[in-house]
Amino acid sequence: MPYVNIKITKEGATPEKKAELIRGVTDLLVRVLGKNPATTVVVIEEVETDNWGIGGETVTARRKKGL
Amino acid sequence: MPYVNIKITKEGATPEKKAELIRGVTDLLVRVLGKNPATTVVVIEEVETDNWGIGGETVTARRKKGL
Amino acid sequence: MPYVNIKITKEGATPEKKAELIRGVTDLLVRVLGKNPATTVVVIEEVETDNWGIGGETVTARRKKGL
Amino acid sequence: MPYVNIKITKEGATPEKKAELIRGVTDLLVRVLGKNPATTVVVIEEVETDNWGIGGETVTARRKKGL
Amino acid sequence: MPYVNIKITKEGATPEKKAELIRGVTDLLVRVLGKNPATTVVVIEEVETDNWGIGGETVTARRKKGL
Amino acid sequence: MPYVNIKITKEGATPEKKAELIRGVTDLLVRVLGKNPATTVVVIEEVETDNWGIGGETVTARRKKGL
Repeated sequence: MPYVNIKITKEGATPEKKAELIRGVTDLLVRVLGKNPATTVVVIEEVETDNWGIGGETVTARRKKGL
Repeated sequence: MPYVNIKITKEGATPEKKAELIRGVTDLLVRVLGKNPATTVVVIEEVETDNWGIGGETVTARRKKGL
Repeated sequence: MPYVNIKITKEGATPEKKAELIRGVTDLLVRVLGKNPATTVVVIEEVETDNWGIGGETVTARRKKGL
Repeated sequence: MPYVNIKITKEGATPEKKAELIRGVTDLLVRVLGKNPATTVVVIEEVETDNWGIGGETVTARRKKGL
Repeated sequence: MPYVNIKITKEGATPEKKAELIRGVTDLLVRVLGKNPATTVVVIEEVETDNWGIGGETVTARRKKGL
Repeated sequence: MPYVNIKITKEGATPEKKAELIRGVTDLLVRVLGKNPATTVVVIEEVETDNWGIGGETVTARRKKGL
């Protein structure tokens, strides 16, 4: 019954990609730890680039520099 | 001074229902653990059904199957 | 299929109290929002008083002042 | 490589203020704990006032009372 | 630069299994979403069975019933 | 009434350092966003190096390589 929370920047992940991610993480927990998929919850949160910081600056600022 | 985070799928919870949930959880923490309501924080997060997975598939996919 | 995370200071909540809290929060989500209890997950995290701050000071410091 | 999650009510924080917050928290972790800024992640989440409760009521209700 | 938080019950996951999980989740984010592994953070939290509830009861209670 | 969660690896942060961090983050939220310190909550979580991954490997493995 694991709970997985994935935070990514909101930069266009499609519903198909998100479904693939959910399936992949669930399979991994079944394979590596023997968890029950029926009660494995995966929640994806997409965060605006203005609200995500790394290295002390926002991803918005980094994207402008081509990072 | 507890902190409670409630994640639910975004499927139409009204402001009244959310206020009722906040009141109920706060009362519960006061009654069961003797916590101070004045510093009890409850944050509700509503997550798109595309971004919530259980049993390895998205809630969007499950809703289409009538689950 | 809600997910609830409750953070409290580690100050002696018994297993019975924690079980009561889990039952109470689950019932509340069923009653207020019509959620399915079978897939409702509640995780309680107990945090050392040195690691919890409110009003800019640790709970350890507050407890010493009788707060 | 710390990870910091800041939740605030959605009440008009500008991109500039959020960038300042990200810079400030990162600097603090470098100064106080000697952490590496390059792998320090700060995520800000802005929550609707209907979804944030304190003292058993929503911030929306509190704002109406002038609190 | 995703951030992934995995919560599981504390029931004996070995360091090797946890390392495998970290590697697997990171690879998945690279493969599915094209994320940079160097800034992908995965944090595993192991929660006592007394503190994890599903279906309104603790995992401790469920384990006693053979669930 | 912000809520801040800081996750760091468990590598010897003293109570004094943690108190300094709590004070610093609270001051920052007051100064930058005009938040009320009395209801600002800061929770620090210290995570075992076996349970923290970056770049696809655990911090335990990285420390052995002198990273």
